[in-house]
Amino acid sequence: MGELIAALLTEDSLVLSLKRVLGEPPRSVSAGIGDDAAAWKAPASHLSLITTDMLVDGTHFRLSGATPEDIGRKALAVNLSDIAAMGGRPAVVVLALGLTPAIDEAWLVAFYRGIAELAGASGCAVVGGDIVRSPVFTIGVTVAGDVRRTRMRLRSGAKPGDVIAFTGALGLAAAGLRVLDAGIAQTLDVRDRDAVCGAYLRPLPRLREGAFLGGSAAVHAMMDISDGISSDVARMARSSGVDAVVDLRLLEPASALRAAANALKVEPLELILHGGDDYELLLAASRRAFKHVASALKHRCGTSLSPIGRFEPGDGVVWIEDDAGRRLLEPRGYNHLG
Amino acid sequence: MGELIAALLTEDSLVLSLKRVLGEPPRSVSAGIGDDAAAWKAPASHLSLITTDMLVDGTHFRLSGATPEDIGRKALAVNLSDIAAMGGRPAVVVLALGLTPAIDEAWLVAFYRGIAELAGASGCAVVGGDIVRSPVFTIGVTVAGDVRRTRMRLRSGAKPGDVIAFTGALGLAAAGLRVLDAGIAQTLDVRDRDAVCGAYLRPLPRLREGAFLGGSAAVHAMMDISDGISSDVARMARSSGVDAVVDLRLLEPASALRAAANALKVEPLELILHGGDDYELLLAASRRAFKHVASALKHRCGTSLSPIGRFEPGDGVVWIEDDAGRRLLEPRGYNHLG
Repeated sequence: MGELIAALLTEDSLVLSLKRVLGEPPRSVSAGIGDDAAAWKAPASHLSLITTDMLVDGTHFRLSGATPEDIGRKALAVNLSDIAAMGGRPAVVVLALGLTPAIDEAWLVAFYRGIAELAGASGCAVVGGDIVRSPVFTIGVTVAGDVRRTRMRLRSGAKPGDVIAFTGALGLAAAGLRVLDAGIAQTLDVRDRDAVCGAYLRPLPRLREGAFLGGSAAVHAMMDISDGISSDVARMARSSGVDAVVDLRLLEPASALRAAANALKVEPLELILHGGDDYELLLAASRRAFKHVASALKHRCGTSLSPIGRFEPGDGVVWIEDDAGRRLLEPRGYNHLG
Repeated sequence: MGELIAALLTEDSLVLSLKRVLGEPPRSVSAGIGDDAAAWKAPASHLSLITTDMLVDGTHFRLSGATPEDIGRKALAVNLSDIAAMGGRPAVVVLALGLTPAIDEAWLVAFYRGIAELAGASGCAVVGGDIVRSPVFTIGVTVAGDVRRTRMRLRSGAKPGDVIAFTGALGLAAAGLRVLDAGIAQTLDVRDRDAVCGAYLRPLPRLREGAFLGGSAAVHAMMDISDGISSDVARMARSSGVDAVVDLRLLEPASALRAAANALKVEPLELILHGGDDYELLLAASRRAFKHVASALKHRCGTSLSPIGRFEPGDGVVWIEDDAGRRLLEPRGYNHLG
């Protein structure tokens, strides 16, 4: 690992720029870029965490549609979102890159800058990686971190009677992607445009929220919403062995989502349910304590926590209900192999 | 992370086969495949290690030229080799796969079988990953592990006067690749063929050797040889701020290498110096203790340790010497961006 980065850092013109971008590793890191593996000291009493994602140009991002900083930042953000969903803290990042000849030094430096900025803001550091040639630009991001055992939340802890809730707002990122694809960003009011395009291009991992929510005994299960709630609520229901009932009357679209959906001529609810790319946290919380948890989260992190339904005894399916009654929800979220 | 694997594991026909292949995670793993991140308990007194590699079809392996088991095993082996070079032990593996439509279920199951076998034999477990679509089959492997601080060895510890040495044999894998590429494997004696093709297709990470050597105070620096000694000795020399002198008279080719080089009409020395893909350990050891270390390694692991030269005061360049005298060695090992 890191041979090429090491070679670049000592031999190539990339050297100083990349080193400057990444900065000095924190003191807990005792071996970093340039050795066979990176080494760091994790807190003795915690569990270790690891999560990996692969992002491929044309599928998970478009080289042509975003700045290198945004692509780098988002590649790390989606991974940090997984750490947040465990209630954990990130410690180190390793990056495996498959580069095409189209990627030049200036692009790569800007890409690393986006990653380094978010890493710094999130309390972790890039400590190594691998750079190879590939016919398609490919990003492999792996983050390791840690979590106090009592603070860790899995998908499988939802109990009948729990409130289903999510942080922040849903559907904005899906609207942003569609607005950019349709080339109609300029037709939106600047605030609405920034809200939906920003959600898509620059998602922020809910690390503080995840750590705070993991610290609450009232939160029984947690995961991040990456593929849309129709898919992700189903995953939590299935893992926990309970049914989920999503009350459509609770899914109030944000005003920017309403404006974008209007311009796109789609139902806001479609984007909320099936859109994906939200990177918000989905959780199951005790009904009795829910209001308290939501107000504490708002107070502590400034982030809203909104109920969208409840878990019931069952076999792991998702129902939707509204004034017309209750029916099964078909998962139509993002399918990675579709 | 792991959404798709989770989906496959609960929904698809891949389900039972993959779960059966991977087996139950060890007890130290408290969250595995199917959650946002994997969690495990690392030894409290150790440093944590992490290393990542990206392997791309056509560059790092050939789908057409090896069995899926071999491709899986080798993808993990090259990564474990980095952990070995730190003196460490692997704990968990996460796999990010970019799949083309040509990869079917049977292939994937066999690929996982190769990985699971080597993981099991190496004391670690696959605990998660990410599966996406890609126009080119791409494997991202990340291993996390741990090492006692006193046992960790970096590249930068070589001192003037130290012996340069390597485990096992060099050049065999490079010969195997060339023999397979040239389609002349059948012309070799079966033993020679197995030796060179086996070294290329099924390298074994030197985990026991790395841990043993890291435990010896006489070993000052260690790294794995992945790009050929001409490149890798130069990296150690540069990191340590010393010159290296490689004595060509000490580089005795193994008999299988001699036979393969003969069939390929190349100099065995070329393959030893510049071949790459060896995944042996390169080390700097105190001259006084070297014989003792080598015989202890032979006794403990059955693996030879051979001297190839010495480090001298200098600025980080590599000299070769033979009966004709001394000259600078130009690194011509594998260049990842070449």
